[in-house]
Amino acid sequence: MTDPYKVLREHFEELITLTDAEFEYISSHFQLKKLRKHSIVIHPGEISRYEYFVVKGLLKTFMADDSGKEHIWQFAMENWWVSDYHSFHTQEPSSFTVQCLEDVELLCMSSADRNKLCAEMHKFEHFSRLKITSGFLSMQKRVMALLQNDAQSRYKQLLEQYPSLFQRVPKALIAAYIGVSRETLSRLQI
Amino acid sequence: MTDPYKVLREHFEELITLTDAEFEYISSHFQLKKLRKHSIVIHPGEISRYEYFVVKGLLKTFMADDSGKEHIWQFAMENWWVSDYHSFHTQEPSSFTVQCLEDVELLCMSSADRNKLCAEMHKFEHFSRLKITSGFLSMQKRVMALLQNDAQSRYKQLLEQYPSLFQRVPKALIAAYIGVSRETLSRLQI
Repeated sequence: MTDPYKVLREHFEELITLTDAEFEYISSHFQLKKLRKHSIVIHPGEISRYEYFVVKGLLKTFMADDSGKEHIWQFAMENWWVSDYHSFHTQEPSSFTVQCLEDVELLCMSSADRNKLCAEMHKFEHFSRLKITSGFLSMQKRVMALLQNDAQSRYKQLLEQYPSLFQRVPKALIAAYIGVSRETLSRLQI
Repeated sequence: MTDPYKVLREHFEELITLTDAEFEYISSHFQLKKLRKHSIVIHPGEISRYEYFVVKGLLKTFMADDSGKEHIWQFAMENWWVSDYHSFHTQEPSSFTVQCLEDVELLCMSSADRNKLCAEMHKFEHFSRLKITSGFLSMQKRVMALLQNDAQSRYKQLLEQYPSLFQRVPKALIAAYIGVSRETLSRLQI
């Protein structure tokens, strides 16, 4: 069995170097959470107090519109972070639902602890800045592909970003992420 | 006449406190640049080595598609930062054009200096993390409004984000930002 804290350390050490003592201190701010497929991690309307590092499993972050249609903002799998970020950073109620698409193992850290660690450890703030910067850049790509109404390139981006996703989720969810109908998705896959 | 460095200092001090010596050190990494309306700040294909703080004036960041149609990713006015961020962070060629919509005064800082200051001064890295986080959050809002195909809410967001924009740019540019035709834009404004 994989040690979740070992996975977390390797993830940090892709960007920063940590001594054992530093990692021990950082990891003391995380809690392990195991949830079953279909469980809801964040409900819309509640404040998202935690950010979740995915050790194992797959989740989706979505918003349902008035007609009940799901719009998927993000998938999160191993080595990704997931939360309702607007709520996490502002402590306003969440507008998203975060739900498990498989059984998951998460390491969660509170917003207060994220800020505390950033203030205490320059290298943790550095890690956080690099992570949010890459989130910003991938979001920018997505905005441009949506503006250009280019479903084919959104499909391609998704494939690049999550190569194993297509084996793990139903086609309907892929379509909801790209923002096209199931029928259009089938045409893109040709 | 406004002192551009005074504007920059006030901008930093919205989020962090700086001593005179600290600000002097930071500001020594910026250069003032004055450009006329219509000037191109970043051409597509070149590497975006600088990030620009807007002291005065208005700019647009856009991408032209194969048919020559402009898709606007960002407007930038006083107290905003502008660059091709993908190129700035990765040092790969830019895919955007950044162009002045008015005469502008910019304070520019290189990517190397941004990284150097972040490494040397924890509080500068803190400032940078908070700024990129708010960029990420507003980008997320835009993705959701695009996914939900809700032009009305994209129009509302734009109004909230840049209240004075509508007096400063032609309607065609507003439409190119929202991702609708000029005709649809007129209907949204009713």
